[in-house]
Amino acid sequence: TPAFDPTHQSHRRYNPLTGEWLLVSPHRALRPWQGQQEKTPPDHRPAYDPTCYLCPGNVRANGAHNPPYPGTFRFDNDFAALQPDGPAGGINIDNLLIAEAETGVGRVICFSPRHDLTLPEMTPAAIRGVVDVWADEYQTLGARPDINYVQIFENKGFIMGCSNPHPHGQIWAQHTVPVDPAKETVQQAAYLEAHGRTLLADYLATELREQQRVVIENDTWVVLVPFWATWPFETLLLPRRAVASLELLHEAEKNDLADILRRLTIRYDNLFELSFPYSAGWHQRPTDGQAHPEWHLHMHFYPPLLRSATVRKFMVGYEMLANPQRDVTPEWAAERLRSLSETHYKQATV
Amino acid sequence: TPAFDPTHQSHRRYNPLTGEWLLVSPHRALRPWQGQQEKTPPDHRPAYDPTCYLCPGNVRANGAHNPPYPGTFRFDNDFAALQPDGPAGGINIDNLLIAEAETGVGRVICFSPRHDLTLPEMTPAAIRGVVDVWADEYQTLGARPDINYVQIFENKGFIMGCSNPHPHGQIWAQHTVPVDPAKETVQQAAYLEAHGRTLLADYLATELREQQRVVIENDTWVVLVPFWATWPFETLLLPRRAVASLELLHEAEKNDLADILRRLTIRYDNLFELSFPYSAGWHQRPTDGQAHPEWHLHMHFYPPLLRSATVRKFMVGYEMLANPQRDVTPEWAAERLRSLSETHYKQATV
Ligand SMILES: O=P(O)(O)O[C@H]1O[C@H](CO)[C@@H](O)[C@H](O)[C@H]1O
Ligand SMILES: O=P(O)(O)O[C@H]1O[C@H](CO)[C@@H](O)[C@H](O)[C@H]1O
Repeated sequence: TPAFDPTHQSHRRYNPLTGEWLLVSPHRALRPWQGQQEKTPPDHRPAYDPTCYLCPGNVRANGAHNPPYPGTFRFDNDFAALQPDGPAGGINIDNLLIAEAETGVGRVICFSPRHDLTLPEMTPAAIRGVVDVWADEYQTLGARPDINYVQIFENKGFIMGCSNPHPHGQIWAQHTVPVDPAKETVQQAAYLEAHGRTLLADYLATELREQQRVVIENDTWVVLVPFWATWPFETLLLPRRAVASLELLHEAEKNDLADILRRLTIRYDNLFELSFPYSAGWHQRPTDGQAHPEWHLHMHFYPPLLRSATVRKFMVGYEMLANPQRDVTPEWAAERLRSLSETHYKQATV
Repeated sequence: TPAFDPTHQSHRRYNPLTGEWLLVSPHRALRPWQGQQEKTPPDHRPAYDPTCYLCPGNVRANGAHNPPYPGTFRFDNDFAALQPDGPAGGINIDNLLIAEAETGVGRVICFSPRHDLTLPEMTPAAIRGVVDVWADEYQTLGARPDINYVQIFENKGFIMGCSNPHPHGQIWAQHTVPVDPAKETVQQAAYLEAHGRTLLADYLATELREQQRVVIENDTWVVLVPFWATWPFETLLLPRRAVASLELLHEAEKNDLADILRRLTIRYDNLFELSFPYSAGWHQRPTDGQAHPEWHLHMHFYPPLLRSATVRKFMVGYEMLANPQRDVTPEWAAERLRSLSETHYKQATV
């Protein structure tokens, strides 16, 4: 009798960070595509754009002037989804209509004064500047008694709802812990309780032994395509040391982080030879004053492209109503990412 | 001191069907949009398209000929994500890499032989034909011992990853119960246990009393924007009677369902005067042989558009990493949908 074959057979995989399952349909990559083709956005931006509200010296929507910043630049989001003030309270009708006031802060972080760069084209030193801002914002916002969770993220590319190509990320920091980090807290706490080690330390050891899904490594960080990856070229970036949040990283770990971020994003750009779109962000311990030894800091990269620069994976229908689903296997995606150069395609001499 | 004001203040709402929270940012609708504009697809399709693999008489990718069908037409998906056969088994490495074979069936249902129609432009009798096919497929697939859940859905519009504009829906039926219906089973079972009535029967009674979020009603069905709606114009369609699955509907309920589907989708088309994109689908009891008295059948509509035919809501960054989030309130969206005509804009005489 033939054996279970995850490279060709439909199957489910378990995500231990959320406790939920993923449907994998490897054979489905063969399906013809007649649907929507993405626009590949023009990639010849000027170093400075007088109409960009994030460029140095320009005026923002609220009338503020950006300083002539040489590195990173951060400010409160002019259209934040979370507001710091407002009356407490809520609604409870029949225990079925339940709402609660929620407070928080939205921040914008410009990664560079250069309108035409993104992380893969920045220097390691400049990326290190972004790392330091992330750590500092996490610590400063997290120290506030009204902030119990700090979500740092980047939406890159118009296809990801990014409204301005100037290299920037965001922070939404708030009073309650959102759905996904709350699930990861529960799962990691149960694992630490059962095994005395963090879930991701053990998972990393398993992946380093297996080597099938590891993409790149340096002394203190590893990038892999998780066994339960949902998006076609999804990756997980994690420190070898089980550290709970960014401000606890050593100097060498921060430099190594800048190095590996650069190498990963160059590979992403090289995959389809375009500025590779994604949403990416950090998951780290809630800032509720607890120690959270279960938390092992990590960054998720969720890129939407599937087959080419113009054909994306749609998370619709079945995925919205029933279950996340992917076509190509994580092992295949890891192999593709491993095969790519770490010289950016724009720099490559033919 | 001012009171909590959910029409202007950031807040969270609880979704009792999933047990998870939603972030609402009503003030954020004011934010300027400079990002991606959707293409509005051409809306002058022929009644018959010789290149369409779903039109009557045409040849499909696998070489099969479609019959000259006069109403609905159904067949096994030529590129199904789930396969009916395959060896059982799985993987378990260190309790961290966990996979299981999964079997199932993919079906395609053409709603009409007419390439140029969608539900809102079909007659009530023709829509009733679709209702009957849904009920029959649910029953037939659900009777199979290897099928424990039947997901019926429609992806409408290229923006929703639909690869062919010919009016059609899909069914993915499988051995295990997917994530979302599993959550709804847990939540509904706990509610029935505690109250002796279905969660949605009580919720419906509350909404009919409040009237703020009800969009349309007929004798046996109600459409409302749920208090915890995530997508800007998301709606929930549910029967007044607490019935667990489609094949249990009475004759009058099936006719009323066709009626209300038509009225809802006409309003959707009229909202921005285009063929309104969405993913929609049924949630009903698992077909695992249990009675599931907790299950109250319903249909979710998840439309992506936010402000206009060309500006959508992106569920990215914060939403992918942390928590679903919406800008406009459900109450505002219900009011907009209530204000629309039930004469399709293409039929309207100016
Ligand atoms: O099966 P289709 O129509 O080719 O594909 C579409 O619907 C599926 C089910 O929602 C999704 O998995 C695909 O990403 C989407 O493109
Ligand atoms: O804040 P922005 O960049 O205007 O908006 C973008 O990111 C937000 C956070 O992920 C999302 O809620 C928006 O839908 C998206 O368009």
